[in-house]
Amino acid sequence: MVAKKISESIKYFPGEGGVTAPKGFTANGISCGLKASGRKDLCIIYTKDEAKAAAVFTCNVVKAAPLKVSKRNVNNGIHAIFCNSGNANACTGKQGMDDARLTIKLLAEEFEISPGSILIASTGIIGVPLPMDAIRYGISKIRRKLTVENNVRNATDAIMTTDTRRKMSKVTCMIGGKLVTIGAIAKGSGMIRPDMATMLAFLTTDCAIEQKLMQRALKNAVKHSFNKISVDGQMSTNDTVYLLANGRQNNPPINRTGANFSIFEEALTVLCKHLADDIVNDGEGITKVIRINVKGAASKEDADIVARTVGDSALVKTAFYGQSANWGRIIQAIGQCPVKLNPDRIHIEMNGRRVCENGMGTGITTAEGKQLLNRRTIEVDINLNMGSSSDYVITTDLTYDYVKINSNYS
Amino acid sequence: MVAKKISESIKYFPGEGGVTAPKGFTANGISCGLKASGRKDLCIIYTKDEAKAAAVFTCNVVKAAPLKVSKRNVNNGIHAIFCNSGNANACTGKQGMDDARLTIKLLAEEFEISPGSILIASTGIIGVPLPMDAIRYGISKIRRKLTVENNVRNATDAIMTTDTRRKMSKVTCMIGGKLVTIGAIAKGSGMIRPDMATMLAFLTTDCAIEQKLMQRALKNAVKHSFNKISVDGQMSTNDTVYLLANGRQNNPPINRTGANFSIFEEALTVLCKHLADDIVNDGEGITKVIRINVKGAASKEDADIVARTVGDSALVKTAFYGQSANWGRIIQAIGQCPVKLNPDRIHIEMNGRRVCENGMGTGITTAEGKQLLNRRTIEVDINLNMGSSSDYVITTDLTYDYVKINSNYS
Repeated sequence: MVAKKISESIKYFPGEGGVTAPKGFTANGISCGLKASGRKDLCIIYTKDEAKAAAVFTCNVVKAAPLKVSKRNVNNGIHAIFCNSGNANACTGKQGMDDARLTIKLLAEEFEISPGSILIASTGIIGVPLPMDAIRYGISKIRRKLTVENNVRNATDAIMTTDTRRKMSKVTCMIGGKLVTIGAIAKGSGMIRPDMATMLAFLTTDCAIEQKLMQRALKNAVKHSFNKISVDGQMSTNDTVYLLANGRQNNPPINRTGANFSIFEEALTVLCKHLADDIVNDGEGITKVIRINVKGAASKEDADIVARTVGDSALVKTAFYGQSANWGRIIQAIGQCPVKLNPDRIHIEMNGRRVCENGMGTGITTAEGKQLLNRRTIEVDINLNMGSSSDYVITTDLTYDYVKINSNYS
Repeated sequence: MVAKKISESIKYFPGEGGVTAPKGFTANGISCGLKASGRKDLCIIYTKDEAKAAAVFTCNVVKAAPLKVSKRNVNNGIHAIFCNSGNANACTGKQGMDDARLTIKLLAEEFEISPGSILIASTGIIGVPLPMDAIRYGISKIRRKLTVENNVRNATDAIMTTDTRRKMSKVTCMIGGKLVTIGAIAKGSGMIRPDMATMLAFLTTDCAIEQKLMQRALKNAVKHSFNKISVDGQMSTNDTVYLLANGRQNNPPINRTGANFSIFEEALTVLCKHLADDIVNDGEGITKVIRINVKGAASKEDADIVARTVGDSALVKTAFYGQSANWGRIIQAIGQCPVKLNPDRIHIEMNGRRVCENGMGTGITTAEGKQLLNRRTIEVDINLNMGSSSDYVITTDLTYDYVKINSNYS
């Protein structure tokens, strides 16, 4: 996945560690009654140190209250990330903002830290006020829980909604002779359920690094990971990625771009890419994960537009569900893109097999197509032959279950 | 539907007339074996006069050969529109262009007219060469058929693919004291089947009108009709609208904008709007037709972007399938639009019931939502409260059958 290998020291540990892997972080999760199922719904990630923070929020103009409130704290020293599932506190107006601020106030009192040192996030139903009695009860309960137990699995469970699998992992790398760890937990499901479309990722590290460089590394990592997956082209009101760095490994602080920054940035990107893969793969209704690679574009932007347009096409996605090597739908989607294009130069390959050359079919039969696509992972390679830029997205097929889950049709 | 009533003389006749309603036009349809089902697959529309022509083609950069060849003839005097179904002659390279030119040559010889006086169109499977033996046989057969019978129903049947209903109608209006007729046949289905996504409309009139004004009127009519319907945001390689005018009513020719031009343009728009409604309503798998009205936008373009983004959202479309008054998904889709927006000012109504006010829910229950949406036609009114511009699209729900039809899943 990573084109340019900067450091041999980067090691990825799937399913291991999570946010408590780096030194000095604790976490836990409890149930306070926000979910009708009674499942865990409150998560806390805590560090005694004043950690530096970086954040990336949804580009949706409709932003949930916890994002708006947390944004102001990102440049402060941070002690805690607090997240509830079961209610998104989105489209809740002034009440929602008051509730988000009150949540922070209650946390600050309970944990005896400054309100400015807390970041919060929410995921769940949109447009319903946050049940503050449950939140109030939950905050004191989670505080007690955290003092007796450090349990990252509980924390991960507490941010899940339609996820069928826990998403936690870590990477390690050498920075200035010290073994630095970045850990993460995430939620998000390949199939997006009513009102619960949010993608959340919380990352922690014991690396010492300047805040501006953290923000830069995180932005770049998100660009190459979470922003490359597309299930149905929808952006949630609550999407949030937080990164905390407490500097506990006492490495020489990363305070400029250069070798150490590159290693950290790459390690962070590797971790985020794996989390993004975990999200796209965790679909109840999904039968295929499809990587759309575009090369030969006149510009990077052109490549991105083509990859996204093909990846979001309902006709393309249903064709893959039916295991049909329908390159005609792909070329039709490409033709809609406002990019530099000559249809007669387009080549398309599926899992290495050329199905379209110079804009025309190579004569693949229905049976050959079915055989070619009879697997979970599909690679589509599109060569526009208009330049030397490339880009990609990872998408899924469009299935009966997508409609079933999202229509709640019974 | 028409905001400004220009002429009381405009009368619309649903299901009546078609392209042979105006004086001097004949039409018929036959089967030549392009469809495995043996159904009709060749259509001819003919006028002895040299008709003026106007045309609107797909914006898809990948254009089928018949469109590219016909484009050159639009400014000529036209005697015939010829269309085959069962094969789109798209993505067929040089062979496709040669076949399109040969089709015109064969028609010219058979009908003893100039090759430059013929417009052609195709719809059906993409990427497979046009079977020219069948076309050759069909052209001589349809010529003989037309000499003995004028049958617009056969012509309409011959352009259908997944359509379940024939689409033909006419409008009449008074131009300079003469009763002028515009007739039309169309094809296109609300649910789009593999490789057959094309929308075709052929219009004829006995009005006398200058070519440039015809083109202007047609472009405007298409903008307000066919370009307002959106089933899955996909644009076919073969979409074509042709208009022929033979001037047989001997009205004072429309040679400038003004009252007569306005009447003609409005009549044409009324006809196209009804045909567009027929198309969006003719879906095998559709259970809802949804009109998304956007008002209070800062610009017309903003209103259009919001209407289309909401109308193409898979989450919004599946919610309507499930009869869920899920305004959260609508506001989420709005929030993704690159337009002037303040989420706290957005109002949303469904079938006249306010479900979201100032970006917050009004407390509609699941049961109330189900009752409100338990009908085939749904009106969604979005007020952005940012200005005075408005626009709309007409879309459908996203159903099991859409996935079934488009995946060919068995």
